[in-house]
Amino acid sequence: MAAPSPGYSLTLRVETPATITATSELATAVGQAGGSITALDVTESGHNTVVVDVSCNTTDAAHGERIKDALNALEGVTVRNVSDRTFLMHLGGKLEVVPKVALRNRDDLSRAYTPGVARVCQAIAANKADARNLTIKRNTIAVVTDGSAVLGLGNIGPEAALPVMEGKAALFKQFADVDAWPVCLDTQDTEEIIMIVKALAPVYGGVNLEDIAAPRCFEIEARLREELDIPVFHDDQHGTAIVTLAALSNALKVVGKNISDIKIVVSGVGAAGNAIVQLLSARGAKNIVACGRKGAISRNEEHTDAHRQWLAQNTNPENFSGTLHEAVAGADVFIGVSAPNVLEEEHIASMAEKAIVFAMANPDPEIDPAIASRHAAVVATGRSDFPNQINNVLAFPGFFRGLLDANVADITDSMLLAAADAIAACVSEDELNPGFIIPSVFDPHVATEVAEAVVEAARKNNK
Amino acid sequence: MAAPSPGYSLTLRVETPATITATSELATAVGQAGGSITALDVTESGHNTVVVDVSCNTTDAAHGERIKDALNALEGVTVRNVSDRTFLMHLGGKLEVVPKVALRNRDDLSRAYTPGVARVCQAIAANKADARNLTIKRNTIAVVTDGSAVLGLGNIGPEAALPVMEGKAALFKQFADVDAWPVCLDTQDTEEIIMIVKALAPVYGGVNLEDIAAPRCFEIEARLREELDIPVFHDDQHGTAIVTLAALSNALKVVGKNISDIKIVVSGVGAAGNAIVQLLSARGAKNIVACGRKGAISRNEEHTDAHRQWLAQNTNPENFSGTLHEAVAGADVFIGVSAPNVLEEEHIASMAEKAIVFAMANPDPEIDPAIASRHAAVVATGRSDFPNQINNVLAFPGFFRGLLDANVADITDSMLLAAADAIAACVSEDELNPGFIIPSVFDPHVATEVAEAVVEAARKNNK
Repeated sequence: MAAPSPGYSLTLRVETPATITATSELATAVGQAGGSITALDVTESGHNTVVVDVSCNTTDAAHGERIKDALNALEGVTVRNVSDRTFLMHLGGKLEVVPKVALRNRDDLSRAYTPGVARVCQAIAANKADARNLTIKRNTIAVVTDGSAVLGLGNIGPEAALPVMEGKAALFKQFADVDAWPVCLDTQDTEEIIMIVKALAPVYGGVNLEDIAAPRCFEIEARLREELDIPVFHDDQHGTAIVTLAALSNALKVVGKNISDIKIVVSGVGAAGNAIVQLLSARGAKNIVACGRKGAISRNEEHTDAHRQWLAQNTNPENFSGTLHEAVAGADVFIGVSAPNVLEEEHIASMAEKAIVFAMANPDPEIDPAIASRHAAVVATGRSDFPNQINNVLAFPGFFRGLLDANVADITDSMLLAAADAIAACVSEDELNPGFIIPSVFDPHVATEVAEAVVEAARKNNK
Repeated sequence: MAAPSPGYSLTLRVETPATITATSELATAVGQAGGSITALDVTESGHNTVVVDVSCNTTDAAHGERIKDALNALEGVTVRNVSDRTFLMHLGGKLEVVPKVALRNRDDLSRAYTPGVARVCQAIAANKADARNLTIKRNTIAVVTDGSAVLGLGNIGPEAALPVMEGKAALFKQFADVDAWPVCLDTQDTEEIIMIVKALAPVYGGVNLEDIAAPRCFEIEARLREELDIPVFHDDQHGTAIVTLAALSNALKVVGKNISDIKIVVSGVGAAGNAIVQLLSARGAKNIVACGRKGAISRNEEHTDAHRQWLAQNTNPENFSGTLHEAVAGADVFIGVSAPNVLEEEHIASMAEKAIVFAMANPDPEIDPAIASRHAAVVATGRSDFPNQINNVLAFPGFFRGLLDANVADITDSMLLAAADAIAACVSEDELNPGFIIPSVFDPHVATEVAEAVVEAARKNNK
């Protein structure tokens, strides 16, 4: 069973008799019902009764109900109200648009707006490149989704995707001072999405594509890269690939292996899987086997979609055919970006000595990391409640900070590789161990290091 | 010649001999060259020289050059650098996107982002209307332009329009706490613009169309009103019409006339002119003559475009044919939203007793207001350097505040009329006089009053 999570934190407003043991009885009842108490705040106190806000982490909605029932069952206790702290945090949205200039008086107004603004407009009309200096374009990116592949929730649509895009924008600002704006499109037509993003581009210095289903995401990204003069980054592909490579580089140091010598099995050939295979190849991996739902992608079959064709031609040098379970036997590295519980303990046991397992399916990994650890030397997941969380937030804020600072039009492999190296280097030799191959998402240095690495890579590209 | 304007304010960094009279000599030179000094700041001081930042308002670029030359001509004086304070204010843009929630630690992250955000997404997926509560949609509008009719600058394109849209967004936040985001579209195709705005709508609680050329703007507005479930407002039409009606209501009080009895001539049949005619008609004006470039719109001609057809059928009850100059003879009210200097003193003299003249062409009005005042009882313009500035900023922030607060899907005439009345009522009976028919744009009550009037009108509509 999942542990109580701060992502499912409730505050129960409880009326209870004013006895000396009242609050401890509440705490005991919550604990016995499996809740994890985070605060007890008395909000009203009278001669006979007190009102206490009991905040606790729970596992899910049913668990919250059980805790409420457990409190109501206490002698003289009534639960007045239950509020969900996650929903409270999202009330009214998580972003605001704030002026950077004060408009206190007529002089301010005549500079920021009419009539003074006309001269700024004319300067940009005369030289479009001045928009980089004189408008928000310099520091602003679009976070674009069609709501078709949101988190693990699938095709939930643009309205329901918005809380994720707002959260992403908040992370961009918090970690790298990038102004990011959510663009949730009420269309899932590839050509319409391409046309719309191109039409929106004047305001933005970059585009972060997010949670768009494969294979549509590949076409959209490729076309926008070709047709726009600002960088286009699909976080589900390249963000994941950067952080995976960073973690793998450090994991290989821990086990003393070289990327060019090892066999890597990648489970999942969607957006993330494809990008990971490409970036690991760019770094020098020679033996990668990519597995879809039907097993290894090989040259023994016909593939209709362009990405499977590319994988068949460019991976799997031994042209292995078989299931994922057969593929992992003898492999040095397993990278899962696929589905929960596709592997069992025996499959991890069948891997090479000092195996590395990245089970990144969310929220439930390809194999329980505790079980994987019985056989593998290094284990990582996408979750925050296990060691070694492989989380895109290590990459995307700093990566875009670097793209904007360097004023680049295109993203190159050298930038992706440099970003991965910068993240890996945030774990020092002294800190490196099987339980710490990747820095914390709250490490304040990571975004700066990634940004500098991207700027440096851009500089070298221009030489 | 125009007066020096804070919209064209320069700071000249000047090196000058360290004499007791140095700064006064600088000030005298600037004054003699026609500049208006706003500050003299010594930034460096040595034994022999001092460096002074001379800030002054000028009229235009050539005037700035003349002032620089005048300073350089002084004995021992060198102008090191000239910076334009308007451009400095726009550097890097005028908006930022700021998180409303702190993301300090893992618990914050797990509520604002994954995994907690998934439940918020699921709630919206189950009930799309929840997006109004749980996302920025509740307080956010799009400021949409195609850059085709920006200020008086014409078709300067989306990049060059962005400084205006940023300024507008800053005003929305400053005056009414509305989060507004600039959408500058790199297309001027009517169908594409309609399709794009519809696709963007999930994130927004309203759409403010801005600086889109007529007649395209009419089609775009009409179609979006029909096809979207959020309110769509074309500020150049309805914002202008609201403020014009507010000013006219008070001007008619000053002269003691009734709107249903008077003859009104409107010069300009673009976005603003059409909307003004419609709103004045809704308020009870019975005798309006609309004039285009070729004179009065009448039923004596065939009109191909739908808006001129409407004007021909619904205005000009006497079916007058003739020039603008002929039309204004005997008129009680002239409202200009057309072009500079289309009227001469003799035409104002030909109007009825106690005439009202609103010469709103920007930056140069239809007639010099000083000249118009020789004959008219009340004169207003769009400029800040004459009394009675008719400025949309009195309307749009509060109007959208009301639309969002009332959660309305459509804008009605009753809301436009209520907003105009609320603005007019911000000038009390005691304050009302020919030089003060409209409140200051910095009157902090206006936006609140307008918002409340819109909410009240929405409530009555729903009865």
